[in-house]
Amino acid sequence: MHHCWFNGTIKKVDDVQMGFNDLGLMRGYGLFDYFRTYNQRVFQWDWYWERYSNSAEWLRIPNPIQKEEAFKIVNELIKMQGSEDCAIRFILTGGYSEDSVKMTSPNLFIISEDLHFSSDADYSNGIKVITHDYVRDMAEIKSTDYKQFMYLQSDIKAAQASDVLFYSKGEISELSRSNVFIINGNTLSTPDTNILKGITRRTVLELVKNDFKIEERAITLQEVLDAEEVFTTSTTKRVLPISKIDDHIIANGKIGPKTQFILDKINVMVAGW
Amino acid sequence: MHHCWFNGTIKKVDDVQMGFNDLGLMRGYGLFDYFRTYNQRVFQWDWYWERYSNSAEWLRIPNPIQKEEAFKIVNELIKMQGSEDCAIRFILTGGYSEDSVKMTSPNLFIISEDLHFSSDADYSNGIKVITHDYVRDMAEIKSTDYKQFMYLQSDIKAAQASDVLFYSKGEISELSRSNVFIINGNTLSTPDTNILKGITRRTVLELVKNDFKIEERAITLQEVLDAEEVFTTSTTKRVLPISKIDDHIIANGKIGPKTQFILDKINVMVAGW
Repeated sequence: MHHCWFNGTIKKVDDVQMGFNDLGLMRGYGLFDYFRTYNQRVFQWDWYWERYSNSAEWLRIPNPIQKEEAFKIVNELIKMQGSEDCAIRFILTGGYSEDSVKMTSPNLFIISEDLHFSSDADYSNGIKVITHDYVRDMAEIKSTDYKQFMYLQSDIKAAQASDVLFYSKGEISELSRSNVFIINGNTLSTPDTNILKGITRRTVLELVKNDFKIEERAITLQEVLDAEEVFTTSTTKRVLPISKIDDHIIANGKIGPKTQFILDKINVMVAGW
Repeated sequence: MHHCWFNGTIKKVDDVQMGFNDLGLMRGYGLFDYFRTYNQRVFQWDWYWERYSNSAEWLRIPNPIQKEEAFKIVNELIKMQGSEDCAIRFILTGGYSEDSVKMTSPNLFIISEDLHFSSDADYSNGIKVITHDYVRDMAEIKSTDYKQFMYLQSDIKAAQASDVLFYSKGEISELSRSNVFIINGNTLSTPDTNILKGITRRTVLELVKNDFKIEERAITLQEVLDAEEVFTTSTTKRVLPISKIDDHIIANGKIGPKTQFILDKINVMVAGW
């Protein structure tokens, strides 16, 4: 049973009610963060907290909670939901507004959620993504602005794809909710601008820094199509191979050996978290 | 006393409650429209309805209501709120979602609100705007994405300005929530791309088509700074002069005679609506 802490009170998720005159709803003035547990312990809490509080500062929404108190609430929600691993979502908005512009006091939700996993087949064969010319507004902030991704749902389905790879002026940025890496020989490369810097991206860069030559730099769409291996990283996907970009096949439509190496390495890490 | 129709039920505004797992809140997947009454009658209903239903279609959120039913609800809300003129807001979101991506059924709110007016001084002396390099994502759709405007609130206040003029690659688009016109001699010009096409913009273009040579075209920021007169149009502002752009003064810091002419003309029109 999942619960939600909303401005100081914990209720069952379905019992939480809010007014519609929230600046997150009316003006898209909101941000979130999302992380998970392994073995009932929050994965990379310090890094997620840092990103959440930076997002709030950069978007200029006052963060109403201190790190220690937030951690206490998070662990209470984890305990309340049972013995499974779960996800935790923070949503912070500009709060209720009388005139739909003026901010008074933010609204903060902290929620436990079920985890949604990719299939075994996706880990073996990789996923397909479509491409779309777009760059996220305020990309470095984990704002709630996913309207392009939501808009593209029917295109993704029609292409029998799992996600979308955004590019602009010939350079890629990210998938809808995850980062992208390419591998050529012993070099692991990933974009460093126009992206939301994922915590799993950071984890991977740290984890394999002695195994690969690491490049954080602009990457063209053509480079991705030509890469030996391509994968994406996110909180729930960890390291997931990408084997088809539109109709172009990567790594013979299977997970590549170096992607498998990195996936194995993160799997060992989280198993022992 | 204002009321809100939410998915079929009318309640007092403060009594309306919703869940947080709405795609408008969680994913910025929402749109709205906003119009007003004059003499208790809805101004330009056909045009607002057309824009609202186009926004829904373009953003791929199923519009759950027919025009005739919506008009009935709107008039009921107007009647319930008393004998003042008021504003009406539609908010349409992707609705509740179990996994924060999958759309099931949209949420529609129809709300009556107080009108907020610009001051007499603003109509005499014009408003100040700051400039900001930005172009709205999916500008032609009245999405709920106003995070840039919300983010800029403290800059606007610090500059003692009223609003922000967006430009990109040297060309202007719009203010945060209203369109921009410039006047030089007998020519009235306004941008036609990267903007939300306002109903008051449309009304003005129709109203003065025999008084000015009309140009709908790309307009540079420099042209705006050099213009004889500049004004903005919106549902609540009607025709409001802009007399200061950052620290640059337009038309000696007063409403220009041609802007006054257009303001007078729309004032006559709405008085007899």
